[in-house]
Amino acid sequence: MTSPDLTDVFAYIDAHRDEYLARLIDYVRRPSISAHGVGIAETAAYIAGVIDRLGMGAVVLPTAGWPMVFGERHDAPEAPTVLLYGHYDVQPPDPLEAWVSPPFEPQVRNGRLYGRGAGDNKGQHLAQILAIEALLACRGRLPCNVKLLLEGEEEVGSPQMPDFVAAHRERLRANLVITADGHIDPSGRAAVHFGVRGVLSFELRARGANRDLHSGNFGGVAPNPLWTLVHLLASMKNEAGEILIEGFYDDVRPPTHLEREALARLPVDVEAVKAELGLRRLDAPAGRGYYERLALWPTLTINGLHGGYGGPGSKTVLPAEATARCDIRLVADQSAATIFERLREHVRRHAPEVELVWQGAMDPSKTPLDSPYAAPIVAGLTQAHGQEPLLVPAMGGSLPEYVWTRTLGVPAFVVPYANADEANHAPNENLELERFYGGIKAGAAILTHLGTLQHS
Amino acid sequence: MTSPDLTDVFAYIDAHRDEYLARLIDYVRRPSISAHGVGIAETAAYIAGVIDRLGMGAVVLPTAGWPMVFGERHDAPEAPTVLLYGHYDVQPPDPLEAWVSPPFEPQVRNGRLYGRGAGDNKGQHLAQILAIEALLACRGRLPCNVKLLLEGEEEVGSPQMPDFVAAHRERLRANLVITADGHIDPSGRAAVHFGVRGVLSFELRARGANRDLHSGNFGGVAPNPLWTLVHLLASMKNEAGEILIEGFYDDVRPPTHLEREALARLPVDVEAVKAELGLRRLDAPAGRGYYERLALWPTLTINGLHGGYGGPGSKTVLPAEATARCDIRLVADQSAATIFERLREHVRRHAPEVELVWQGAMDPSKTPLDSPYAAPIVAGLTQAHGQEPLLVPAMGGSLPEYVWTRTLGVPAFVVPYANADEANHAPNENLELERFYGGIKAGAAILTHLGTLQHS
Repeated sequence: MTSPDLTDVFAYIDAHRDEYLARLIDYVRRPSISAHGVGIAETAAYIAGVIDRLGMGAVVLPTAGWPMVFGERHDAPEAPTVLLYGHYDVQPPDPLEAWVSPPFEPQVRNGRLYGRGAGDNKGQHLAQILAIEALLACRGRLPCNVKLLLEGEEEVGSPQMPDFVAAHRERLRANLVITADGHIDPSGRAAVHFGVRGVLSFELRARGANRDLHSGNFGGVAPNPLWTLVHLLASMKNEAGEILIEGFYDDVRPPTHLEREALARLPVDVEAVKAELGLRRLDAPAGRGYYERLALWPTLTINGLHGGYGGPGSKTVLPAEATARCDIRLVADQSAATIFERLREHVRRHAPEVELVWQGAMDPSKTPLDSPYAAPIVAGLTQAHGQEPLLVPAMGGSLPEYVWTRTLGVPAFVVPYANADEANHAPNENLELERFYGGIKAGAAILTHLGTLQHS
Repeated sequence: MTSPDLTDVFAYIDAHRDEYLARLIDYVRRPSISAHGVGIAETAAYIAGVIDRLGMGAVVLPTAGWPMVFGERHDAPEAPTVLLYGHYDVQPPDPLEAWVSPPFEPQVRNGRLYGRGAGDNKGQHLAQILAIEALLACRGRLPCNVKLLLEGEEEVGSPQMPDFVAAHRERLRANLVITADGHIDPSGRAAVHFGVRGVLSFELRARGANRDLHSGNFGGVAPNPLWTLVHLLASMKNEAGEILIEGFYDDVRPPTHLEREALARLPVDVEAVKAELGLRRLDAPAGRGYYERLALWPTLTINGLHGGYGGPGSKTVLPAEATARCDIRLVADQSAATIFERLREHVRRHAPEVELVWQGAMDPSKTPLDSPYAAPIVAGLTQAHGQEPLLVPAMGGSLPEYVWTRTLGVPAFVVPYANADEANHAPNENLELERFYGGIKAGAAILTHLGTLQHS
């Protein structure tokens, strides 16, 4: 694929660096904390105004939670339509005392902008918006059709997204979805993520007697809910790391040859990771590649297990109740609903007295590495950065990408622009300014390369 | 065995009820809280004075902790020597606001004396002391030789007892030991306990990474210390209730025919116990008798298991550490030291990265039901109460009885005088006055019946 000439657009972007920084600061200084309901409506109106000035006909769409901001431009009838997704809400800034500069008084230090939301996600979707603005300034029209959706509740788990996407299929119809979120590789190389693991959270509650008992007077008489949970959990996953829930692996899609190759090419220094985490070994089973573990295999993690005495020293108590909280990371084509049914059946068979409680889920998502939209994205990133991006078949964490791949049925790509040490969800969140400007160029290049595809 | 005539002694005891109650009140109103170091030395001196006035040559013996109070009388060279053991310290009285009358201002209500230590253990060993006094008043001498040892740290786990007994073998030399502690059967029948289970407390500490991790970004990469503990614990005991630590049951002494008969005779309404505790079933394995579970079988109880998230809702964390606290109830002839070695070997084999921490132990103890000293004790209780006592081969709980049976090598009996609802260790601790007076008579009768035995 020959690269289109973007010299003018990149030069325009470089010429406007100071203005772009000022506009990023103006966005980041507006609190929009979904968890606390602070500044959300005002920030939605603000960013809708920014989008509307690009001739995208911005609308603020109500949901049962905080509103969505939507806009679109259809400048290229023959070219594909891309939906760009991001979120205008941010994490709470606590603990405030750990910030060097206040979270909503953005400050530039050492080539980075510090402020809550700088990287996650205001800086990243603003880069996409500014890419549109730069293309319009230089060319008068966009090279492909663009829809832009900004959510206001991503940081509280995107509770409205599944219903919203299902209810607005027509409005959101596109050929592909690109999300600029997360961060690039620690080496500094850009990355394209083709999938995410899903997640299913649940709780197991076991009860014994109606009160705590003395282990001498009742040990051997009253069942112990901690033993009940230990035996139930051990029946769900063995020491070798195999998950034993009947049918658990049935829907795991084997990796393609391309995916195996891409995983093998991802750079990782496993010894350095182990040293940094203080680990003597990786989790069982042994013999799996580092990224294979995160991309190809589902997991069953006990997030917390609590019951009985937890104070200093010992106490000879036989506890009355115990609770385990767990999550399952799902891979394509597992579905949370099916796995939960299999889990329910497993609990019913092994420990029918244990209560199983659903605590929320996101399905996994995967887009083929040979999707026709992958090549223009890779080409755009390569042209903007002068280096080919890493191709990640699936991320270990979870995002509601399934609303694109499963509900809308279109390929979806996560293309992060933030530095790996952005400290999102933590104090002193920051975005490297070079990443921000590079993101604007990357955004413009990707849209331009997508425009070279004929609409199917 | 023809019962000796005790009409005069019982009449003397009945005639002194008011004085005995006044003396019990005078003892209970003195705080002696070993856990807080309150009033211990004063109370030791007080009760030593009481004993000394019986011509027992009381001494207060220092230990590395609180002192022991000791006295003895040798009136019957041909008769056995009995060591009577009790403790003058009491539990802390918290929560104070739950007491109807203040814990150290003893008050009689409804035929019971309410106050901290009334039943556990001041009322019970004072009954033994008053039995000696009554016998001396009526007969001028004791029917057998008596040693009396009162400890000041029973309520904090008797930490000095093993060393003290080993260091004072000669002083404590006796043919048998009787402890008046615990409580009688809820039916109101007296009981003789021939053994106690031992206890071995330990902690298992597992560590994963050097910090909590995100279950999506590291699930499948970093080992989870909660899974480590679940698999280790499941390897130690199976769902059927069998303890799988290699060699665990090797030293379990099979019950004698007499013990099996005695266990079968103990009254219990299992359905009522289950209803009271809110249980649908007893602990695995099924098919064991109620008292067989408590007297003949060791147990492995998880007292507490804690790791990871314990707040409301869910949190996708992969925890850095987890801790389990457990106790093993031991039966004769298991020893805590041997079982701990087997446990250490088991942990080394199954989860060498888990830290095993000893948290204290007491060996089990058992005295044969056909001990020559059992018959006079039973006869004395029968004569004092007009009803045969229950014979309990072993209690489920633990007391340091092994210092008598293992260190001194003599038979040991626990003969409680307190009512089953004495509320020891709880607010509104109390002693039924009829139990107190009955205990004085029982103590006098037991000493008298022991006096009918020829010294071996």
